[in-house]
Amino acid sequence: MAKSMNILMFSGEYDKALAALILANSARELDVDVTMFFAFWGLCLVRDPDKVTYEDKTSFEKMFGAMTPKGPENLPLSKMNFAGIGKKMLIDMMDSDGAPHLSDFLKGARKKGVQFYGCKLSIEIMGLKPEEFIPELEIVEAKEYLKNAIESDMQLFI
Amino acid sequence: MAKSMNILMFSGEYDKALAALILANSARELDVDVTMFFAFWGLCLVRDPDKVTYEDKTSFEKMFGAMTPKGPENLPLSKMNFAGIGKKMLIDMMDSDGAPHLSDFLKGARKKGVQFYGCKLSIEIMGLKPEEFIPELEIVEAKEYLKNAIESDMQLFI
Amino acid sequence: MAKSMNILMFSGEYDKALAALILANSARELDVDVTMFFAFWGLCLVRDPDKVTYEDKTSFEKMFGAMTPKGPENLPLSKMNFAGIGKKMLIDMMDSDGAPHLSDFLKGARKKGVQFYGCKLSIEIMGLKPEEFIPELEIVEAKEYLKNAIESDMQLFI
Repeated sequence: MAKSMNILMFSGEYDKALAALILANSARELDVDVTMFFAFWGLCLVRDPDKVTYEDKTSFEKMFGAMTPKGPENLPLSKMNFAGIGKKMLIDMMDSDGAPHLSDFLKGARKKGVQFYGCKLSIEIMGLKPEEFIPELEIVEAKEYLKNAIESDMQLFI
Repeated sequence: MAKSMNILMFSGEYDKALAALILANSARELDVDVTMFFAFWGLCLVRDPDKVTYEDKTSFEKMFGAMTPKGPENLPLSKMNFAGIGKKMLIDMMDSDGAPHLSDFLKGARKKGVQFYGCKLSIEIMGLKPEEFIPELEIVEAKEYLKNAIESDMQLFI
Repeated sequence: MAKSMNILMFSGEYDKALAALILANSARELDVDVTMFFAFWGLCLVRDPDKVTYEDKTSFEKMFGAMTPKGPENLPLSKMNFAGIGKKMLIDMMDSDGAPHLSDFLKGARKKGVQFYGCKLSIEIMGLKPEEFIPELEIVEAKEYLKNAIESDMQLFI
């Protein structure tokens, strides 16, 4: 039976998302089943920048939606971001090594059959709409995540 | 035999504590045994705001005790806290969805029989006193945490 | 058969590194096999401050190397660092309790046979050189980490 890995993606930062998606892609290449559960700031990683909406939202939800990153390439670094200069530096260093960007790893994960779960409660609180996410995202309750995670061979909170 | 989850709660932030306690409550509702080990900043979550003391403390310990959050509702957000404005916004959004607050989830976890461990070394270094914590907190060494965690079905570091 | 713990050390902060290395040392004392995989900022923990080099690096890599911590004792706190004052306070509090410093726990982990892995991709992107690290560090791909982690009894992302 295939081994399985479960990642709870809580953080909404470029470097942490990169780590998570490199692991997800590598695991799939080793035939490991991968489930990622996106909650809180982690949801910013699976927003589709072309589908941001402000309809049917309270003023707080609109403000929140406008202030949070609208997709993978908009995430800041967890450290040394320096209003984007540190991040630009990192991206340049990645480019000079021919390393793919975060959005490439996300595309890879979608192609390789990673299971994408979104946390229902976080989505409701943040006032995000189902249509703002990548189509693979299935919105589930924390209990669904737990049932999957507890049967997995490894679990990470990132 | 019941499944078991072990959370090492290192962070002292409202949103991360919310994630941890939502998982702890959901797991108990699924009859999963839950142990939470509070270390470093995570200890701020299990301080009882009515029992803060400055007696028998060095001046550093007093200053540290005064500067760190005194209980669950005093924790800042890990991002977009903006001196409390971002946090107030999040709480308002939670209220408008009828979502419980962090202190409610903490009460739930205490009622549902979550096992609360506090890290002895962190408590000594930070100069916190056993009577400053919720009564369920059992102060143990890192080895006790490890013995429990390594036998659990899942472990998270939050 | 011995139990095993695997830590992915992503963060480059004094308090988180302290937590990770206290766990690593305690686990070894319980005869648990320990593997630590250092990636991104976590690599700053296993840099040898006496071996920092700026040769054969691009200007970004040099700047990056100069701006990041050069070894365990140079890491900042994850919170309340206050340009080093908060950290000094914590170290003073550790000293007054006779608690070892981070570099002592790192020495302990090296003596006790913790397996040290460094993430090949992070090292290449950050432009770090193999000779800048402690000699125990073996540079491997993310897949090697995953193969080890998925067979371990517990995994933490710190």
